[in-house]
Amino acid sequence: MAKALSPRPLPTILLVSLIPVASWFVVRPLLSPAPPLPALYTSFGFSIYAFLAALYLVPALGPTFKGANLKGRDLLKIYSDPIPESLGLACASIYVLLLILFIPFPFSNLVANLSSAKPQEPEGLTATASLHHELAMYLSSLLSLLMATMLGFLDDVFDIRWRHKLPIPIIASIPLLMVYYAEGGNTHVVVPLPLRSIFGVLVNLGPLYYVYMSLLSTFTTNSINILAGINGSEVSQALIIALSVILNDLLYLPWPIDFRIPLHLLGSQAEVEVGGVLHAGMSYGSKELVGRHLFSLYFMLPLVGVCLGFMYHNWYPARAFPGDTLCYVTGMAFSVVGIQAHFSKTLLLFFLPQIFNFLLSCPQLFGLVPCPRHRVPRFDPDTNLLHPSKTLFIKPPSNLTTLVLRTLSTLRLTELTIHATTGNVLEATNLTILNFFLLRLGPMNEKRLVQTLMCTQVAGSVLAFIVRYGLAGLVYDGDRH
Amino acid sequence: MAKALSPRPLPTILLVSLIPVASWFVVRPLLSPAPPLPALYTSFGFSIYAFLAALYLVPALGPTFKGANLKGRDLLKIYSDPIPESLGLACASIYVLLLILFIPFPFSNLVANLSSAKPQEPEGLTATASLHHELAMYLSSLLSLLMATMLGFLDDVFDIRWRHKLPIPIIASIPLLMVYYAEGGNTHVVVPLPLRSIFGVLVNLGPLYYVYMSLLSTFTTNSINILAGINGSEVSQALIIALSVILNDLLYLPWPIDFRIPLHLLGSQAEVEVGGVLHAGMSYGSKELVGRHLFSLYFMLPLVGVCLGFMYHNWYPARAFPGDTLCYVTGMAFSVVGIQAHFSKTLLLFFLPQIFNFLLSCPQLFGLVPCPRHRVPRFDPDTNLLHPSKTLFIKPPSNLTTLVLRTLSTLRLTELTIHATTGNVLEATNLTILNFFLLRLGPMNEKRLVQTLMCTQVAGSVLAFIVRYGLAGLVYDGDRH
Repeated sequence: MAKALSPRPLPTILLVSLIPVASWFVVRPLLSPAPPLPALYTSFGFSIYAFLAALYLVPALGPTFKGANLKGRDLLKIYSDPIPESLGLACASIYVLLLILFIPFPFSNLVANLSSAKPQEPEGLTATASLHHELAMYLSSLLSLLMATMLGFLDDVFDIRWRHKLPIPIIASIPLLMVYYAEGGNTHVVVPLPLRSIFGVLVNLGPLYYVYMSLLSTFTTNSINILAGINGSEVSQALIIALSVILNDLLYLPWPIDFRIPLHLLGSQAEVEVGGVLHAGMSYGSKELVGRHLFSLYFMLPLVGVCLGFMYHNWYPARAFPGDTLCYVTGMAFSVVGIQAHFSKTLLLFFLPQIFNFLLSCPQLFGLVPCPRHRVPRFDPDTNLLHPSKTLFIKPPSNLTTLVLRTLSTLRLTELTIHATTGNVLEATNLTILNFFLLRLGPMNEKRLVQTLMCTQVAGSVLAFIVRYGLAGLVYDGDRH
Repeated sequence: MAKALSPRPLPTILLVSLIPVASWFVVRPLLSPAPPLPALYTSFGFSIYAFLAALYLVPALGPTFKGANLKGRDLLKIYSDPIPESLGLACASIYVLLLILFIPFPFSNLVANLSSAKPQEPEGLTATASLHHELAMYLSSLLSLLMATMLGFLDDVFDIRWRHKLPIPIIASIPLLMVYYAEGGNTHVVVPLPLRSIFGVLVNLGPLYYVYMSLLSTFTTNSINILAGINGSEVSQALIIALSVILNDLLYLPWPIDFRIPLHLLGSQAEVEVGGVLHAGMSYGSKELVGRHLFSLYFMLPLVGVCLGFMYHNWYPARAFPGDTLCYVTGMAFSVVGIQAHFSKTLLLFFLPQIFNFLLSCPQLFGLVPCPRHRVPRFDPDTNLLHPSKTLFIKPPSNLTTLVLRTLSTLRLTELTIHATTGNVLEATNLTILNFFLLRLGPMNEKRLVQTLMCTQVAGSVLAFIVRYGLAGLVYDGDRH
């Protein structure tokens, strides 16, 4: 089976043809006449660079990582040759470095002046102050991403136990929180319509808002991390969530052509107003909303590039493993855009499969049901199929555990093995979404399972858009918040 | 010799007594009436925390580092038990985390308003813009420090070869350069008096200024890194340079009492003007100069704290090794303050022993003289003394090499072993400042050698102050730049 482990071939033609395309996008904003939203061109160009860098660097660095003992056996394969591990570090480094090199494009008056043919109308100190403010937000996001990278890699090197690694994203989110505070960030949230008679339209969460932000990063990071274990699962989740965020961002950009979403078909009460100063889609002419979603795009586009490049090598059968670093960085990137661009509730809607997986995992995470170190499906080397893995009860479970398991079994979320005479639970399938798929759809091979996961993720995002733009009108009275 | 390796005792009394003191300094600026320069109090409090954290965490993390194979033999000892390596990572993490937690104190209007009893006179958008600008500078510095930490640790894990690690500080300085550019940073330098007839008073270096900045970080980082190898050498260099920078910064603060330096004694032509709006020492009332040197203090004070704490465990005989991480982070910290606070020329004066060591090393670094992997002095286990280590010539050296070596030998910087009949150079002592000390002062033990290095560093700083404030008046016409 040495064949399965030889590196995937890399077409040189891709490198040769994409570099000029990417470079054109990077340079285009500097040429006169400047396009609208110039930095978006650069960001797109950088994303192609990110894709190419991940595609070519990941296999090149594999031997170095193996040499530094960063390697692991693929537990769901018949061969035992070690695969290089923690290559999410390479992806994260490419990602953060490109985001740093991107700084002058959106945040520099110098570049803006270079690219504008006629001198812009001076807007005085307000514009400069706003640019400094956005730059500070951007830099604090980079600091959080870099901390996530570093902590993820430390986790890989020191193999931190999962109970100790839960708070790691909170540490990584500290720069975000500190700068949010220093910049006098808004801690008000919009109250849903039914509760307004009690709380008013806006409620100031104060310090609770900071707790919310750090919990958000803990959730986005760890929820991707616990939905891992099969080839391509971490990176495909990140990819689809990033693409969903991008699609959502694009709705708020000032497109030159008017387009409207048939919101009334989705049952929305909100009137469809398209146009305004900036011809903005869902921004209704709010420059601030456009700015926020541009900010989000700057982080999401290169993330998609890096994920695509890495996925090529992580796809079944995997030639490289992501390690925890990739989960930490992608999770933190989603938190960053959710917080800084103020759409954390919408963001959470893109995590529906992760929320389901987390809720399903709770009995095991909180010690009600025994939790083995690995909950990945069981591999049958004879048929090459995956089956649900099981957790064993050494001693009879408590009444509470039995109740929870029987409820989950009734909901068809787990399968129990019951002792014929005592009626005690002897075994239960591990409580993860992957085992749930295998239970409901029958044994399948690893590639099929990751494809099922991806389809579920896409379906979740479609549902998220329906909820966000269809049903949200029932509890909120506008899309400005 | 197991005794030598048992951890150094940690007095609990230090922890119990210093925590309240540090906490008082952190909280003091929030109490009314606010002291002048409130954030400096907090910075000092944080530095005590940094000292305590390094003092207590370094021995606590030792076993974990050894478990992850981050350990090394002390080559200059008779025992061979491995010592935990790369503990500079712990220091760097404490340092960066405290700098992040420090953000709200100097850069937040909220904290400023909390601490001022009477509402300050509003200075409008200018003050806010300037605060945002300084925050962006601060955050870019943190990004560079965090990158240096990460790259240093990668170097320790992957054991990068020294020719490949030379450009690493350039990568770490990218955030600094990008934000400097985006913020429209000044690229003018003041021309020395004799050259003004040709270049004028100010000359715009343009892109060359960015080259200068990245070379500065390469120098400060690598020059500390190549002066390593004996217990305590890296951290003591960093400590003394940081203290010198702090002393220089203190000269520019608005002290409540007027003090004046007897510049005329040092031969300065500049008139001694003390006073002005802020009663500033060398700032002559310039708020900008005070701000720059405060910025520098915010970075240097906690660095001293961390270095002191680590030095306790790294002192002869060492219980913990710093790894490359410490050199990278301290080197980058010096570059950051030199660049952001605009005193890079003064900063370089504090590197006199490093400059000497670098120049002396050049023939070996650039391949003229064979360079063994380790150039540390040779340890004689019988006498416990260090002797100059030697490099061997397998084949007779070229004429150029012979010329260089004979010149260095005449200058008493190296000692050669000459073949009695052919006159060829057979051996030369390695070209480092440590071997130079041993050549000139005779064999000594490791503790004595590091003390000699520290005395030299202090003497270098004294000379630096004389040159900066005494002789600079001959080539520059004021201290405002």
